[in-house]
Amino acid sequence: MTHPGSHAFDDGLTLETLGDGRYRGRTSAPYNNMVGPFGGLTAATLVRAVELHPDRLGDPVTLTVNFAGPIAEGEFEISTRAVRTNRSNQHWYLELSQNGTVATTATAVFGTRRTTWDALESSPPAMPDPADVDTVDFPEFIAWANNYEMRFTAGALTETESADSVATLWVRDSPPRPMDFASLTSMSDIFYPRVFQRRGKYVAAGTISLTVHFFATAEDLTAQSDGYVLGTAHARRFHQGYFDQTAELWSTSGTLLATGHQVVYYKD
Amino acid sequence: MTHPGSHAFDDGLTLETLGDGRYRGRTSAPYNNMVGPFGGLTAATLVRAVELHPDRLGDPVTLTVNFAGPIAEGEFEISTRAVRTNRSNQHWYLELSQNGTVATTATAVFGTRRTTWDALESSPPAMPDPADVDTVDFPEFIAWANNYEMRFTAGALTETESADSVATLWVRDSPPRPMDFASLTSMSDIFYPRVFQRRGKYVAAGTISLTVHFFATAEDLTAQSDGYVLGTAHARRFHQGYFDQTAELWSTSGTLLATGHQVVYYKD
Repeated sequence: MTHPGSHAFDDGLTLETLGDGRYRGRTSAPYNNMVGPFGGLTAATLVRAVELHPDRLGDPVTLTVNFAGPIAEGEFEISTRAVRTNRSNQHWYLELSQNGTVATTATAVFGTRRTTWDALESSPPAMPDPADVDTVDFPEFIAWANNYEMRFTAGALTETESADSVATLWVRDSPPRPMDFASLTSMSDIFYPRVFQRRGKYVAAGTISLTVHFFATAEDLTAQSDGYVLGTAHARRFHQGYFDQTAELWSTSGTLLATGHQVVYYKD
Repeated sequence: MTHPGSHAFDDGLTLETLGDGRYRGRTSAPYNNMVGPFGGLTAATLVRAVELHPDRLGDPVTLTVNFAGPIAEGEFEISTRAVRTNRSNQHWYLELSQNGTVATTATAVFGTRRTTWDALESSPPAMPDPADVDTVDFPEFIAWANNYEMRFTAGALTETESADSVATLWVRDSPPRPMDFASLTSMSDIFYPRVFQRRGKYVAAGTISLTVHFFATAEDLTAQSDGYVLGTAHARRFHQGYFDQTAELWSTSGTLLATGHQVVYYKD
């Protein structure tokens, strides 16, 4: 259901509180992937479920989502459990189910932050201004991609084999939407399977596990707002049915907001 | 308890089967860390618990361990649950508890592998032969480190501030031990907190979450046996109490065995 004036991402994230840490959501056609929903939205919805929990402490520090089985179009239920709450962090276990069958499991650590010695050791790749990079359209069967404005300097989807799997782009929600932890989570998954890029064609592939490490504080996200995010991702090894992809998401001003580390299943 | 002739690592991994997917182990003094047990052994013990489960399918594909609280010296119990079993992979949820209090949570994906298009895209850093690099001793209060032979070319523990957090070394069990998935898991955690290296001193720090992505098959581990592993790790950002560290473990012959991605808590 789309609410007039609301963002498709917020519609997709909508959860009904059922009590006892359980929430009901439903899949969202604008965020469909080639098969089933876009994993980024699923991961974001899990973050949102914890955010809605009355016992939640702090903001996301890390999230691991394991995609255990397909999610069918329609309603799903998320169960959340605070396994352990410490003074400054909290450990969650989550399951997303449909008709009693678990489709997705996740763990999350939320926590509070404090002023410490700080250092930004990595640096973002050099990029032209977003206005100087063309936007690209994805094919219609990758519906979710139309909710992102993507301006690639490397790794745009083509039908040519590539010697490497590096993708680098400016990205933001389309239409623009002020960033929050849910949208940052989702954005960590915008890098289509790196095997497509290497092989220059679609092969059967799907994320098995996605880990997101959050560096951004709520203040960092407020500062970022709806500006362009610099995203870059690459794979290290494709071996016997599984490959990895590591992504970095950088703020417009050049600080690291989050990283994503995936294991992706592939055939052929 | 040390069995004559057995390796300290195997002693540390020892689990008693309690039924219903539960296992009892105990902490192992040779693998103590500055506070509590070495996280690598804890992670390895969780892998071993799944390996012991009669329903286990295949070998580790990915593991995420969340260190939720301290583990006291003595016995602990691990509960394992196969949340979902598919044709080629299996999703696990695990908890390590002491006296009914959860100290560690984890998810794991195990799976079978198949011949596919393969590519090794990353490459290991150039290194001299292990024999040409000196071994280093760690201080006694980092007991676990004495179970590894470590030959650093960058990032040996010193009392000097470092401009970067890169550590690179040859490593193997000491005494040598043929590699299995448990020891590969443990080895992904041998990189002492990167903040020590940057600051040239010990600060309060501890891993919150460790994700291991496994590329190696059982055959790859047999080929590696007890040879030297090339390990390299670095941090991207230290920010408000949390930093990351990403590690790569390469075989003697130059293929990627596993990667590790951590979030580490630090003070000051």
